Amino acid sequence: MGTIQEKPSVASSSSVGSTVVNEIRQTPILALIIFVPVVILLERFSPEAHTLLFVMSVLAIIPLAALLSRATEAVAAKTGDAVGGLLNATLGNLTELVISLAALQAGQYLLVKASIAGAIVTNTLFMLGGAFLFGGLKYHLQEFNRINARFQACLLFLATIAVLVPSLISQVDQPPALAVSQKLSLGLAIILIVVYALGMLFSLRTHRELFASVSHAEEHEKLWPVKLSIVMLVVVTLLVALVSEIFVGSVQVAAEQLGMTPAFVGFIVVALVGAAAEMTTAFSAARANRLDLSVGVALGSAVQIALFVAPILVLVSYFIGPEPMTLQFWRGAVTMMVVAAMAAALLSNGGRGAWYAGVMALALYAIFAFTLFVLPPATPS
Amino acid sequence: MGTIQEKPSVASSSSVGSTVVNEIRQTPILALIIFVPVVILLERFSPEAHTLLFVMSVLAIIPLAALLSRATEAVAAKTGDAVGGLLNATLGNLTELVISLAALQAGQYLLVKASIAGAIVTNTLFMLGGAFLFGGLKYHLQEFNRINARFQACLLFLATIAVLVPSLISQVDQPPALAVSQKLSLGLAIILIVVYALGMLFSLRTHRELFASVSHAEEHEKLWPVKLSIVMLVVVTLLVALVSEIFVGSVQVAAEQLGMTPAFVGFIVVALVGAAAEMTTAFSAARANRLDLSVGVALGSAVQIALFVAPILVLVSYFIGPEPMTLQFWRGAVTMMVVAAMAAALLSNGGRGAWYAGVMALALYAIFAFTLFVLPPATPS
Amino acid sequence: MGTIQEKPSVASSSSVGSTVVNEIRQTPILALIIFVPVVILLERFSPEAHTLLFVMSVLAIIPLAALLSRATEAVAAKTGDAVGGLLNATLGNLTELVISLAALQAGQYLLVKASIAGAIVTNTLFMLGGAFLFGGLKYHLQEFNRINARFQACLLFLATIAVLVPSLISQVDQPPALAVSQKLSLGLAIILIVVYALGMLFSLRTHRELFASVSHAEEHEKLWPVKLSIVMLVVVTLLVALVSEIFVGSVQVAAEQLGMTPAFVGFIVVALVGAAAEMTTAFSAARANRLDLSVGVALGSAVQIALFVAPILVLVSYFIGPEPMTLQFWRGAVTMMVVAAMAAALLSNGGRGAWYAGVMALALYAIFAFTLFVLPPATPS
Repeated sequence: MGTIQEKPSVASSSSVGSTVVNEIRQTPILALIIFVPVVILLERFSPEAHTLLFVMSVLAIIPLAALLSRATEAVAAKTGDAVGGLLNATLGNLTELVISLAALQAGQYLLVKASIAGAIVTNTLFMLGGAFLFGGLKYHLQEFNRINARFQACLLFLATIAVLVPSLISQVDQPPALAVSQKLSLGLAIILIVVYALGMLFSLRTHRELFASVSHAEEHEKLWPVKLSIVMLVVVTLLVALVSEIFVGSVQVAAEQLGMTPAFVGFIVVALVGAAAEMTTAFSAARANRLDLSVGVALGSAVQIALFVAPILVLVSYFIGPEPMTLQFWRGAVTMMVVAAMAAALLSNGGRGAWYAGVMALALYAIFAFTLFVLPPATPS
Repeated sequence: MGTIQEKPSVASSSSVGSTVVNEIRQTPILALIIFVPVVILLERFSPEAHTLLFVMSVLAIIPLAALLSRATEAVAAKTGDAVGGLLNATLGNLTELVISLAALQAGQYLLVKASIAGAIVTNTLFMLGGAFLFGGLKYHLQEFNRINARFQACLLFLATIAVLVPSLISQVDQPPALAVSQKLSLGLAIILIVVYALGMLFSLRTHRELFASVSHAEEHEKLWPVKLSIVMLVVVTLLVALVSEIFVGSVQVAAEQLGMTPAFVGFIVVALVGAAAEMTTAFSAARANRLDLSVGVALGSAVQIALFVAPILVLVSYFIGPEPMTLQFWRGAVTMMVVAAMAAALLSNGGRGAWYAGVMALALYAIFAFTLFVLPPATPS
Repeated sequence: MGTIQEKPSVASSSSVGSTVVNEIRQTPILALIIFVPVVILLERFSPEAHTLLFVMSVLAIIPLAALLSRATEAVAAKTGDAVGGLLNATLGNLTELVISLAALQAGQYLLVKASIAGAIVTNTLFMLGGAFLFGGLKYHLQEFNRINARFQACLLFLATIAVLVPSLISQVDQPPALAVSQKLSLGLAIILIVVYALGMLFSLRTHRELFASVSHAEEHEKLWPVKLSIVMLVVVTLLVALVSEIFVGSVQVAAEQLGMTPAFVGFIVVALVGAAAEMTTAFSAARANRLDLSVGVALGSAVQIALFVAPILVLVSYFIGPEPMTLQFWRGAVTMMVVAAMAAALLSNGGRGAWYAGVMALALYAIFAFTLFVLPPATPS
């Protein structure tokens, strides 16, 4: 075991390259990696081709997200359960975090918030629904660990409530001063991070036996060597950051030209792109009758966005960006998040999956996506 | 079997009459059928007696709804499971559909929407609550198939969310143009009908064993011969259409004179009248300790209204009526539907019924009815 | 048994004193009783020291609430199950009732409503969460009677919906006349009290076996003799009334000086003070691995406030106070109550407790408390 682990530790850049080539052979989605240099070059030579830049940056982020996800898993698996859990928990949504940071720096708060809300809804409804559907088309009924599912659904409910509070206030007759709203958001962000940290303590340490089957399932995958993974983590994160900047710079003009509202782009496009990697995992796990893993990835990712990524962005916004970001979402986004959390609770309550559960979740997602596409949503503050 | 089925196939109008007389003897409610000719004659000779016409048309619809329900069941039972399920699913709420179509044609969108929302709430809270109460007064605890109940509760939740989305939008600062709202409603209607169709595929075909006990229970009833049933279906539907037109024409003036708001009439009176037949079934099944059937009828009917009747009305409104109808409900109606769906989920979650569960559902219904009675609701667009 | 019961029936005032001294030795919280005479004297000599009066009256109410709770339990236990249940149900939140009556008489409807909403939220989230946390830190997993927990969660849901209805209406474009709102609140109050009475019939009579373990647990405590208890009940209630009046008289000015909004005081401070006694019970029961009792006390108390205390206050407001009180709460309070009811349903659904369930409930409470502290809430009508 140890020797196998040692060999790739002399990983040079050529070894990184060969690993990438191998990966591409296995997962065709990685072929999209060609768009990374293309979009970077294009941005240099024709920075005004917004729609093309937008489309290409979207295509370029998908394989990068997949690589990032593989690298994180590998590092997490090698560093032992506690540190590994921590790594997975902090880096699991690194793509979303990097994209959001780029948008934050550009002062595009609407895009940041739409992508947070969209990631929660997409992970809960689209990823979970897709897993139920794909798994259910192959297996008549699938069992999963309902304790973990319920735990995640509870956390999600809690997080959406926290996000609901400042948004609720903004609808009161005289909206609160921005300063009040910022103070409130800062406090909520800290509470959410503490709850998230304690949740990891609970699920990874004190009550890990309750969450057993989920973590077991992950061990079956073939992982990259650890040093290579770390190199990949750093390199790919930088690439994501680079492409994200191009994406954020082009999204507004491109969206207009493509006839999409900024909310639709953030809510649906960014969310689907950012979650592409996890989706591959969740769907293929469902096809392999490991619905436990699918549910864990889908709900766990949504919880991580709500309880970790969103609060981190609030905290970081005090250091980068024109002014502190609040947790004040527009009304429609709050409704969608709350509904998604309730749907997750309903669907995961029984501990069994069937194809029609997937249809219901996907229909809810289709309703939201269609609504966002059809109408100009209210602009939040 | 075949010979028994053949005999009534020579059903003449006199045979229809004798069947009706037999039915009336068994179910006294059918004696109200006398009001059908009465109200039709009255409308001819004194079309201005609105209050009288209103009361009599309500009384005339009740026995017609009961006959329609019996005829549909008979046809459905004889045509085999798949077609039968389809028939039951499409014709199960024929009374509500015909009344709503009459209102739609008259351009009374407020009445249509109130009766949709009211039917959902009435079926969920009043019919389910009544079944729990009546059954619970006779039996200490009653078990029912919680898989079916949960399935229906999930569908109901989904449908109320779909209905919530356009209503939510109308409360945004600048309400969307009617065209946007219509486009949105059309899309949602199509999604809902697809989900409904797939739901039938799931519960009647691919996973029918999960819903076993409910369909079994229905077989015990004595059914009409099939050809007679078809004749009855056509004749009674025409009568319902005729009476509904009188009802819709008289309701507004009558409601004013009786001190009721139009919303109360649509929400409570029309809903109770339209569901009278199913209610008889649901209550007597509960008394016979077949709570499975009661829950199936109550929730199934609510789901059918939400996922089938309402979207069909939206689609039909493009062909009849002054302008396309939207799925935009007034805020109070949306709240009541969502609450009813959540209450259904809570009450059906345990898979056991007791009299107090009925009291809670009925109390919720009483709260809604009293609220609608006391105050003038906000008028929707 | 009978003889033991007879002895203390000659309870003189000195015996009352010695019982009090004994109690103080066992429960140190009772030492705060010293503040009762102090605050009464202070109010006589310097009625303008609002902040001091506020703090001292809060400190004085805590031991009185504890004594009241002990006395009620003792009387209830001795008078047999039916009458005892009735007594517990009516006097269980006597402290909150007396404080609210004092506020009602002073016309401080905002304080009354905030303390009702706050008591529901505090009992559900803080008391239940604390019990889960304290119990969970000692025991890995704790089981409890989920039937009772679900029953209470359902009742709570029903009550919060009832409370939501008039509040919803007030947000309609043209708010209803006060007369309409009062009529509605009166009707709702009567419905809620009937539901509450039937709930007692259900849980104490017809289906008492379902609620078995909860009532068993309570028998283990050492109770006071019945006549002493009755004397205590009367005396302590009078003292609470006296101190409450001082509290209500000083709270507004004191809150301003302490930088707290009236809503925060009512919602958090009054609720925590009023529930101090039950909290001691709930927390120590959880530490003794009797989570059944904790859940019963926490949810039962919340249900009692919602279905009994609040409606009673509406009815009483027709006789004391400047004008009839409505059940119209401000929007934030309604949201918090609904969220608390949903959280109770989620947390109690599994029938098992662990420390992290407590963390989630307490985090939700912290979010609400922090929000109320940070911003001036919308003033209700």
